[in-house]
Amino acid sequence: MASVEELQKKVRELEVKLAAAHGTSDAVRQKIDFISADVVDSNPYSRLMALQRMGIVDNYQKIRNFTVAVVGVGGVGSVTAEMLTRCGIGKLILFDYDKVELANMNRLFFQPHQAGLSKVDAAAATLFHINPDVATERYNYNITTLENFQNFCDVISTGGINGGPVDLVLSCVDNFEARMAINTACNELNQKWFESGVSENAVSGHIQFIVPGETACFACAPPLVVASNIDEKTLKREGVCAASLPTTMGIVAGFLAQNTLKYLLGFGTVTHYLGYNALTDFFPIMGLKPNPQCDDSYCRKRQEEVQARPPPVEVATEVTEDNTPVHADNEWGICLVDENVPEEDTTNLNLAEGVHLAYTVPIDNETPESSTGGAVAASELSLEELMKQMKSM
Amino acid sequence: MASVEELQKKVRELEVKLAAAHGTSDAVRQKIDFISADVVDSNPYSRLMALQRMGIVDNYQKIRNFTVAVVGVGGVGSVTAEMLTRCGIGKLILFDYDKVELANMNRLFFQPHQAGLSKVDAAAATLFHINPDVATERYNYNITTLENFQNFCDVISTGGINGGPVDLVLSCVDNFEARMAINTACNELNQKWFESGVSENAVSGHIQFIVPGETACFACAPPLVVASNIDEKTLKREGVCAASLPTTMGIVAGFLAQNTLKYLLGFGTVTHYLGYNALTDFFPIMGLKPNPQCDDSYCRKRQEEVQARPPPVEVATEVTEDNTPVHADNEWGICLVDENVPEEDTTNLNLAEGVHLAYTVPIDNETPESSTGGAVAASELSLEELMKQMKSM
Repeated sequence: MASVEELQKKVRELEVKLAAAHGTSDAVRQKIDFISADVVDSNPYSRLMALQRMGIVDNYQKIRNFTVAVVGVGGVGSVTAEMLTRCGIGKLILFDYDKVELANMNRLFFQPHQAGLSKVDAAAATLFHINPDVATERYNYNITTLENFQNFCDVISTGGINGGPVDLVLSCVDNFEARMAINTACNELNQKWFESGVSENAVSGHIQFIVPGETACFACAPPLVVASNIDEKTLKREGVCAASLPTTMGIVAGFLAQNTLKYLLGFGTVTHYLGYNALTDFFPIMGLKPNPQCDDSYCRKRQEEVQARPPPVEVATEVTEDNTPVHADNEWGICLVDENVPEEDTTNLNLAEGVHLAYTVPIDNETPESSTGGAVAASELSLEELMKQMKSM
Repeated sequence: MASVEELQKKVRELEVKLAAAHGTSDAVRQKIDFISADVVDSNPYSRLMALQRMGIVDNYQKIRNFTVAVVGVGGVGSVTAEMLTRCGIGKLILFDYDKVELANMNRLFFQPHQAGLSKVDAAAATLFHINPDVATERYNYNITTLENFQNFCDVISTGGINGGPVDLVLSCVDNFEARMAINTACNELNQKWFESGVSENAVSGHIQFIVPGETACFACAPPLVVASNIDEKTLKREGVCAASLPTTMGIVAGFLAQNTLKYLLGFGTVTHYLGYNALTDFFPIMGLKPNPQCDDSYCRKRQEEVQARPPPVEVATEVTEDNTPVHADNEWGICLVDENVPEEDTTNLNLAEGVHLAYTVPIDNETPESSTGGAVAASELSLEELMKQMKSM
């Protein structure tokens, strides 16, 4: 015979399981109108408001005013959305046309009971459960078809909290075509966005901040994650799939959400390009100027607009919007890493057809003083110089 | 007070609701005995087994044989545990004595409906739901009390899958006392472990791999996350709390889980010390030799044992256990970063009493060629040299 205590414990456990099964209405906390800094256990914002007291962020509460579009709600996009939700972002707009599968369970966020649901529906339900203060909008379609692309552009340009453009677009897609669609839209709309990617062998990734006309767009530069026009669906059809890890994807999502916060809230420096090589814990940072001969006509137009501007006092005025930045150093974090890569033996990596390494793995040449795995030759190279350098490898 | 009958009725009702919520009598997927490489949507391991096909990991299935102890199931520990669970680790042992609060909702993993539950119970329930193949054990106590410490040591030395010691201990605690307790236990038990930490201003963190006798233990070197013997509980009591971000904690958890996978599965190189500065996306890497005058007598004993060993052919034989490593470069990733920090103006950081910066923020001196924010002078310094260098700052 079970005791009252045992039964009470059982009831509590079942309530938790039931709430986890699909955030029931009574399990969701009440909405909070005003972000408070009170240090009480019941305040979900106390540890975020502490960023203000510690001098990291000037005004945390303005996070409520921002809208971020997340395109691709997979291993990177879902975690990025969850991080921004937990930070109390104003509004998230989610785009994806895929369904949750058990094969996605090796990445964070989705749970087995959500298999079969659309990713945007499953994600929105979980995010609402985590933080009902965040508004979400969902688009369960492929942005690359003609009709959807037009709708996508409309949403980006009017989806902001006050009916204006969104504040930032985050690309978390897994194929070349979708990246190019986002690039085309953002060049045309003059919309700042972040590119992100994880390599098919799961052990490297990157994020890239793209400001139309100011930095290289996705069409300007050869992508470092090599696109073969073979997306995951094609690979799967042939019984082959890309590897993935919750670690690599969680780290890339962390970099993406962190730089989004830095950009929106104006602290630290927004990194232009940040890479991650998991095998050696190597983090290349670089900057790329836009290509004056870019195939995208809107990219060239934005470049002309930027050149016609009066020279700015410092490059990052828009990044650190209010007053003086808290940390006024290396505004763009732009410097180019000399990966310093000797010949690499890729033969033993045994890559599947259509799958390329996103990064070369630096090979140490035994003398630590000569420093691979972190050597930074900081300078901003032009695209021409970079192309020349890449060709000479 | 509810009667036994009322509670039993409530349990039945909840069980019915839970079954209805999932559409089946069992929301948790069936256990899987054998990790298959089949590329089908229903296989939760297909993307992990692809690591083998891509030549990253020699034998992924052996992940089932490993046991990892996670001490502290907060913002870093919970996400680390989830990543390892999704990777299909054999067994996780969780230690924590705290309860879930709404004030934890600005970090990943826990959800509002779990408020009030013990962290270990809430975590174990979620992890089981995500992957029932992973065995979990929970200890809802403070490891620093005398009685619990002895039990903690017993669990570490017998908690492995075959009754031997665990394969790795991951420290994800938030205070100095608990870190020292783990350090004492691991030196005595000759147990390899990872230290991790996130600074109180939420914008930096680190992981550190500690091999007793071979690398500096937590007592050998002054901790870079400065301990003031004021833990979060004390701060909270005074209406002050440390800041935290899901981004920084997720990234540190990602580094911790990734290096755990590299160590257990023998791929890439395990990084000895990896730091993260979110403001500048700076990632210092370094190595520290153990201190021959360490206060911990077991640390000194382990150092003697290491010195008595015949000189190894290469340092990292145990890290890359099988055959030849896939990437045989810079086995330990050990090099020391010259942070190259000019005077830092910490006055505008406005830190609360008892709260220190874990890292100095590199200040850029305008000429990118002189490279702060990434300059790596790779060399292994002795502890004496490091201490001297720190004193001269």
